[in-house]
This record gives sequence, C-alpha cells and structure tokens, in this order.
Amino acid sequence: MKKLVRFGVSLDHHLLADFDRLIAGRKYTNRSEALRDLIRDNLVGQEWIEDKQTVGTITFVYDHHVRDLTKKLTHVQHGFQGLILAGMHVHLDHDHCLEVLVVKGRGSEIRKVADALVSLKGVMHGKLTMTTTGKALR
Amino acid sequence: MKKLVRFGVSLDHHLLADFDRLIAGRKYTNRSEALRDLIRDNLVGQEWIEDKQTVGTITFVYDHHVRDLTKKLTHVQHGFQGLILAGMHVHLDHDHCLEVLVVKGRGSEIRKVADALVSLKGVMHGKLTMTTTGKALR
Amino acid sequence: MKKLVRFGVSLDHHLLADFDRLIAGRKYTNRSEALRDLIRDNLVGQEWIEDKQTVGTITFVYDHHVRDLTKKLTHVQHGFQGLILAGMHVHLDHDHCLEVLVVKGRGSEIRKVADALVSLKGVMHGKLTMTTTGKALR
Amino acid sequence: MKKLVRFGVSLDHHLLADFDRLIAGRKYTNRSEALRDLIRDNLVGQEWIEDKQTVGTITFVYDHHVRDLTKKLTHVQHGFQGLILAGMHVHLDHDHCLEVLVVKGRGSEIRKVADALVSLKGVMHGKLTMTTTGKALR
Repeated sequence: MKKLVRFGVSLDHHLLADFDRLIAGRKYTNRSEALRDLIRDNLVGQEWIEDKQTVGTITFVYDHHVRDLTKKLTHVQHGFQGLILAGMHVHLDHDHCLEVLVVKGRGSEIRKVADALVSLKGVMHGKLTMTTTGKALR
Repeated sequence: MKKLVRFGVSLDHHLLADFDRLIAGRKYTNRSEALRDLIRDNLVGQEWIEDKQTVGTITFVYDHHVRDLTKKLTHVQHGFQGLILAGMHVHLDHDHCLEVLVVKGRGSEIRKVADALVSLKGVMHGKLTMTTTGKALR
Repeated sequence: MKKLVRFGVSLDHHLLADFDRLIAGRKYTNRSEALRDLIRDNLVGQEWIEDKQTVGTITFVYDHHVRDLTKKLTHVQHGFQGLILAGMHVHLDHDHCLEVLVVKGRGSEIRKVADALVSLKGVMHGKLTMTTTGKALR
Repeated sequence: MKKLVRFGVSLDHHLLADFDRLIAGRKYTNRSEALRDLIRDNLVGQEWIEDKQTVGTITFVYDHHVRDLTKKLTHVQHGFQGLILAGMHVHLDHDHCLEVLVVKGRGSEIRKVADALVSLKGVMHGKLTMTTTGKALR
C-alpha cells in the first residue's frame, strides 16, 4: 500500500532556482515529481548493476531485403521465448524496418538477447534500453 | 544501389586477437559485420548531435492506477501526432504498464515528446533511445 | 552569498527506503547532499547541451615510444593554449603514459581539443569528461 | 613485440564515404587508426565490465571554503593509498578547485574511491572516467 512520507531538503537558493528552471524546461510542474524521477532513475541503474530481475527494450533497425534475415530474427526470438514479452514492427520506408522488443529477465540474460539480434548481418543499428518492472519503484 | 568496396585495415596481431574474442562473445560470426556496426553506431550518434531527421524510441513504465494518467498520456501523444509512428503497450503486472513509442523527427523534437511524457506524475521511469531512419546507414 | 532554503519532498515510504539504501552504498551520510548531487549533475549536463563556458578533463593513454608522438602532443596543446589550464603526466609502465588535461571553454571548443589529441596515432584510448567551472553550482 | 597484420573489411561504398566524412571531422588522417580506436574503446569497456585490473581518473570540483573539506579529501585519499597513483589540483576561481586523481586497481575498487570522494559535502560535481593501463591495447 502507498504511504506518502515527507522530508525536508535544504539547499542554496541559487541552486534551487537553477533546478526549477531546468525542470520547467523538461515540463515538470512539480518539484517532488522531478526529484522522484531522479531517484528512480538511479535505482533502475542499480537494478541493472546488481543483475536483478528487470525489463529492457531492444530497438533495432534492419533492411528486410537482406536474404534470410527475417527468418533468422524469428528464429533467435523463438530461442529466447520465455524472456520476450512482446514485439512491435514499424515500416520506416521501402527498405527499412524498426523492431522493438520488450524483454523481461536478469540484466545479463536481456543482454544476450540483444547481442544475438544486433550481431546479425542486415541489422544496421541496435540498442538495449534499460528500464524496470516497476516493482521496485514507487 | 548497393556497391561493396573492400579496404585493408592494419593493426597489431594482439589487438586483432582481442577484438576477435570480444566480438565472438557478442555473437558476431564476421569481423566486417562487427566493424560495420561500430561505424554505424558512430554515424547514428552524429545524426543526433547534428539534429537531423532521425528516429527514436521512447520507453516508459507507469502505474495505470494513477488518476487521469492514461488520459493525459493519450492527450500528450495526440499533441505530437505527426511525429509518433506507432506505439505498443505491455501489461507488466497488476499495477504497471510499459509503453514504447516509435517517434520520427529531428532529435530536438523527439526529445520534446519524451520530456512531455516522462515528466507526468505516475510515469515512474522513462528513457529516450536514439536510433535512426536507416537511410544514412548502409 | 550562500542562503540556504528548505523545501519539502513527498514520496512513497518504500521509495525513500530504497533511496536511503542506495545512497548509503555510495557513502552519503546525508540525504540532502545526495539530492543536491543529483541536481547538480543534471545542471552540468545542461551546461554542456547549451554549449556554455564550462570545464572538461581530457584523459588519454599513449605509447611514448611511437615516433614523434610526444612532439605532436605538445604541438597540439600549444595550438589550444588559451583553453588548457593544466596537465598531468603519469608513467603507467615501461611503454604507456597517461595524461590528463584540464580544459576551460565552451563545450564545443573543448571537444575540438579532445578530437585533435585522441585522433593521433599512438594515442590508444582517450575520453572527454564533462565537468563544470562550479560557478553555476551552489 | 609489435607485429602488424592486415585484413580486409568490405562495406557499402556509401557507408565508407559517410565514415570517411565522420572521421575527417574528428581529425583522423588515417582510416585504420580510426578503426583501431573504435576497437580499443570497446575493449576498454569490456575490461571494466569484467572488473579487471585497470585505470580510471576521478575528476571532482569543490568549494575549498567548506569547513574541513580539504582535510577530509586528504584523509580519504590516504585511506586508498595503494590505488591512487597521482593527483593534480587546479584553482578554477576564488572559491572553486578542480582535482583529478589517477587511480589503478580493479574497476570495483576504483568506484569505491570515487564514491568516497564525491559523496563528501562541498564536493559539487564528480565523475569517474574509465580508461586503461594500456597493456591490453596495442
């Protein structure tokens, strides 16, 4: 259950003014929310350092004309079936497709899925984005 | 049209052995493909530095119980309609959802979409992943 | 002049407990100091995005046996004389030296110094670290 | 002993043209040297992932007027004496100092030194830069 607590932060008034300007530029309407986001982003980083159960997205761009590539992409994904929760496919232009997969597991397992996909010939760019199950964040 | 060219790279045999070990660990079966990926990743980084037309994915995790949040998320996305190509939604557990959007535009515009979403109360973690239209990569 | 202000942050008690654990692991004895550091790190990032007057350090490792390299390193540094505040040299082993330079200027100027040094043959690894004059941080 | 080997890389002529433009902008005069640097940077990243013996620099900016801070900085550095190879101090302005330390050890040990320094009150910004002993790079 949610239980909000409140604590005081003290800082120099110039630092606070600079922070307020920064977060206004990033569309925050609320100082607490901006600080909570800074805190959560650090906790997510730590989840990945400690190789805990977490969630990542793997984004990759490829040329679907490359021979056998779509077959290989499907094959790799089947090999990691328990880890991949969902995928989305976008046709960027006549040649290029973008695919995003949502993967759940230990950080080291998610990296293996990313390596297996990004290393395929015809995959032109790939990135792993580290996010979270949300369970550890409140 | 594709036209392959070939050029020679000279390097110390120890450095080459270390590189071969590194890329084998990352599942590359082919040295040229690994080098092409290093090159492309640097080109994609440059696309973003120069604020060119590009593609990014925005990944965020939120608590769908937070009052009015799904309404606000939809509202923000409508405000950037020309930029957002597609979206995918995954139910992580009873409380948490993950959403990934594929966004096309200049890097600075894509950042604005990310800021507007990630700053909302109830969005617990958000990240912008810089990828590419693929047009500049071959 | 320093003028401390105090404001309240509200967050879920689980999130606070996780944050307290995280910062204890990083040796903070004080929650406000940890939050100030998160805030300042974001402000420093923004200084670099906006290409303001700032400070960076350039760290590079090189093989001092490479013909003419030390002469070239000196030559490049003289070409940017107004920007480089100081430098330190460490002998890592029989072959390898590490050098760190402290550079003050706009972010884009500091990058040019880094590019000119890191691209030299014999410089094996180089990195630009973005820090600050400290003026904007309090 | 150095022994140069040469191998061929094949890639699309457009990709090569883009790469040549990119590295010219970064002041490389030689394609092999640019590729060696990409390779070495990946090897250095791997050294840190595998927590091997390596070298890092810790850069921090602080306000030397903060009571007892210089004493504490000295004290922390003495506690890690075997790891810290050298340090340099730069007076940025009336209030602010920048210090860079060169630290040798396992990645996890170097992180501990950085945490202990950056968490001190009065240290306004701190960063760990991951570089290398150079031994694994050729």
